[in-house]
Amino acid sequence: MTAYEIISKKRDGFELSEEEIGYMINGYAEGRIPDYQMSALLMAIFLRGMNKQETMTVTKNMLYSGEVVDLSSIPGVKVDKHSTGGVGDKVSIILAPVVAAAGVPVPMISGRGLGHTGGTLDKLESIPGFRVDYSIKEYKEKIARVGTCLIGQTPDICPADKKMYALRDVTATIQSIPLITGSIMSKKLAEGIDALVLDVKTGHGAFMQKHEDSVALAKQLISVGEAFGKPTVAYITDMNEPLGNAVGNWLEIVECIDGLHGEGPDDLMEVTHQLCGAMIYLGKKAASIEEGVEISKEMIRSGKAWDKFLEIAEEQNGDVDILKNPLRYPKPAFQAQVPAAESGYVASIHSLEVGLTAVTLGAGRQKADDLIDPKAGIVLHKKAGQAVEAGEPIMSVYTDREEVLKAAVERLGKAVAYSAQPVESKALIHEYLDKNSL
Amino acid sequence: MTAYEIISKKRDGFELSEEEIGYMINGYAEGRIPDYQMSALLMAIFLRGMNKQETMTVTKNMLYSGEVVDLSSIPGVKVDKHSTGGVGDKVSIILAPVVAAAGVPVPMISGRGLGHTGGTLDKLESIPGFRVDYSIKEYKEKIARVGTCLIGQTPDICPADKKMYALRDVTATIQSIPLITGSIMSKKLAEGIDALVLDVKTGHGAFMQKHEDSVALAKQLISVGEAFGKPTVAYITDMNEPLGNAVGNWLEIVECIDGLHGEGPDDLMEVTHQLCGAMIYLGKKAASIEEGVEISKEMIRSGKAWDKFLEIAEEQNGDVDILKNPLRYPKPAFQAQVPAAESGYVASIHSLEVGLTAVTLGAGRQKADDLIDPKAGIVLHKKAGQAVEAGEPIMSVYTDREEVLKAAVERLGKAVAYSAQPVESKALIHEYLDKNSL
Repeated sequence: MTAYEIISKKRDGFELSEEEIGYMINGYAEGRIPDYQMSALLMAIFLRGMNKQETMTVTKNMLYSGEVVDLSSIPGVKVDKHSTGGVGDKVSIILAPVVAAAGVPVPMISGRGLGHTGGTLDKLESIPGFRVDYSIKEYKEKIARVGTCLIGQTPDICPADKKMYALRDVTATIQSIPLITGSIMSKKLAEGIDALVLDVKTGHGAFMQKHEDSVALAKQLISVGEAFGKPTVAYITDMNEPLGNAVGNWLEIVECIDGLHGEGPDDLMEVTHQLCGAMIYLGKKAASIEEGVEISKEMIRSGKAWDKFLEIAEEQNGDVDILKNPLRYPKPAFQAQVPAAESGYVASIHSLEVGLTAVTLGAGRQKADDLIDPKAGIVLHKKAGQAVEAGEPIMSVYTDREEVLKAAVERLGKAVAYSAQPVESKALIHEYLDKNSL
Repeated sequence: MTAYEIISKKRDGFELSEEEIGYMINGYAEGRIPDYQMSALLMAIFLRGMNKQETMTVTKNMLYSGEVVDLSSIPGVKVDKHSTGGVGDKVSIILAPVVAAAGVPVPMISGRGLGHTGGTLDKLESIPGFRVDYSIKEYKEKIARVGTCLIGQTPDICPADKKMYALRDVTATIQSIPLITGSIMSKKLAEGIDALVLDVKTGHGAFMQKHEDSVALAKQLISVGEAFGKPTVAYITDMNEPLGNAVGNWLEIVECIDGLHGEGPDDLMEVTHQLCGAMIYLGKKAASIEEGVEISKEMIRSGKAWDKFLEIAEEQNGDVDILKNPLRYPKPAFQAQVPAAESGYVASIHSLEVGLTAVTLGAGRQKADDLIDPKAGIVLHKKAGQAVEAGEPIMSVYTDREEVLKAAVERLGKAVAYSAQPVESKALIHEYLDKNSL
């Protein structure tokens, strides 16, 4: 068996065996297979695809390249949520305390933002003092104590995926369903879950822009999760406009604080409650998803979720006082308004453009080692379907970079489409899938 | 413009612009583009293809990555022949003296053997003292003096192709028509030709095993040659069984000596005369290819080609005395016969198996830095269509490696198929193509 033969086989559209996939992934993780052979294989996989069995094997090899966390000593059904990412997607930060408050432990290893999408870790780190770099041992202790812990991928978790992801990122081989599936599921399976809820975004601000691709990805993810004996369900949700009103790290934390006080934007809370409901159901604290959604709402209404959030922040070294008094947070040096260009109704707000503009303001990264300004970002005052008067502020822009302000306002102005007639609001949650959908 | 964007574009099946192709090839040659991005692009090209314009641009960028030899000071139309390679293909060694003797200068930069196919340079170097490492300046002087010179690729010729070929060789991206075209044509255009004759082999001992692939490659080669203003014609010739009877470096030189004395095997001489005829015609020393073929035969009959061969050998430091007395050559330590398994007719001799077995005997390379034993090889006593008695020797095997002898004899035995009925002989030259075939 040689790397050359394995690359040729996939290049010609044949199925790779367990041994062949293992030979390449382990060889690459251990430095025996060079980058240039792995990237040729990745491109062949991208263009030729992989079947269910191969995807399963990719996941398994990535998973067992590192440590698999054992949370069996913690009572309860451990359930996590994974989102394929989008603009303004701060769901995890409301969801983790809600579900933990409902008695379902939430083990959560999250990622950072790259490109136009934000990352949960960057948002959390905008809270002064908040740490996401705990060891697996501390992570387990915190879940046992508080019911959840939100950390980043440690070097022990799926090192093969980490190395392959970095290579995919520079060889245009990210958007491959089997490779995305392996990458997502290996990390989720490594963090110690018993069940998983997926939020697969669709639309131009999402990773997968077409509905059918999102459904195909969701099915592969469910199929791998179930094959590992972990009940897995998925929602396909809309990412044509940003989720909620805030885009930018601290701005999103403020929106989460509002949300935990029952004052979050409707779209954000609709998605959050639905995902929480499914988690509470899978965590066996509700007899149905619908009942889970009711419990989720009750966790907000009763203040239990807010208390849990403060408990998490304290456990992870965050400044609880500033969460209680968010106006104390440092202010960005510059701000500007984006005026509505027309009177009528907002037809759409292009989430990809909003995400990319937020990066120029300092809210995200163009390169992996770029620094983030937690104060920078955008707040939307209107969303699709709402009535608007020409000239009224449709967005506010915050940044320390005076030089980018003008271009950002212009770009955001072009990201909005108007309609003279009322616009029918589109469904936010497109589809629910589980093992019965396969 | 980034490597990432260019890889994505080809990955998605779009045409690359001149700028994009230039950015990647020059960047790679100069070390700005890393191996792993080039190999992802190569696999995308392999699977998505390239159109005529892109193939032309690839060729141009490879060509101008190095020196382009100017032979305009040498009178006459300079014509070379290129073969895509096969088992027992020693045509160049008879052809160069024949065509040079006919008054057409032959600039010839050749390659080495790798895998199951032999290389002209290795064959020539089996002649004691024969040098193929002359500088471009010496190469030009020798062509002016003798009418031809056979050397290897210098570091100044197409360095981008050299680096890309080495990467393709380990990433399973060799057999791509646009990349093969770029690689062949850039080297041929760099050596100073005015016109070119191509021998595109087809069959299981060839680079392209299917007839339609060989035709597609021939058409791309002709199209690029003509676009550079160099009249280019191609023959599709058979490589299902070895060409001639000898396979192995010195053994093939002996067969060339026979051929130059009018005693070469029919199949070898048929292909050689046809290619020589086309070269003499393109070199304007004949009014038609048919007349060129007659001149080629006359060059052998008259002894002029043999005299030219000795002149070339002397010019390139070869031992002329041993060419006149080949029995003086050192003998391999071991030899064995392959007996015919059945009485009847030889139906076929599998050239790929013969080529691979010759490598085990020491006649070729498994890795680029393997040493070659010039004495090692195989002589076929029967070819497809000939009658045979069970037990009579069908091949002889020569090697210094006693330990491989038995396995080689067995493997060669299995490479022969028999028929009780007479076998219809297949056409050796399948097709002629030129610009009118495009």
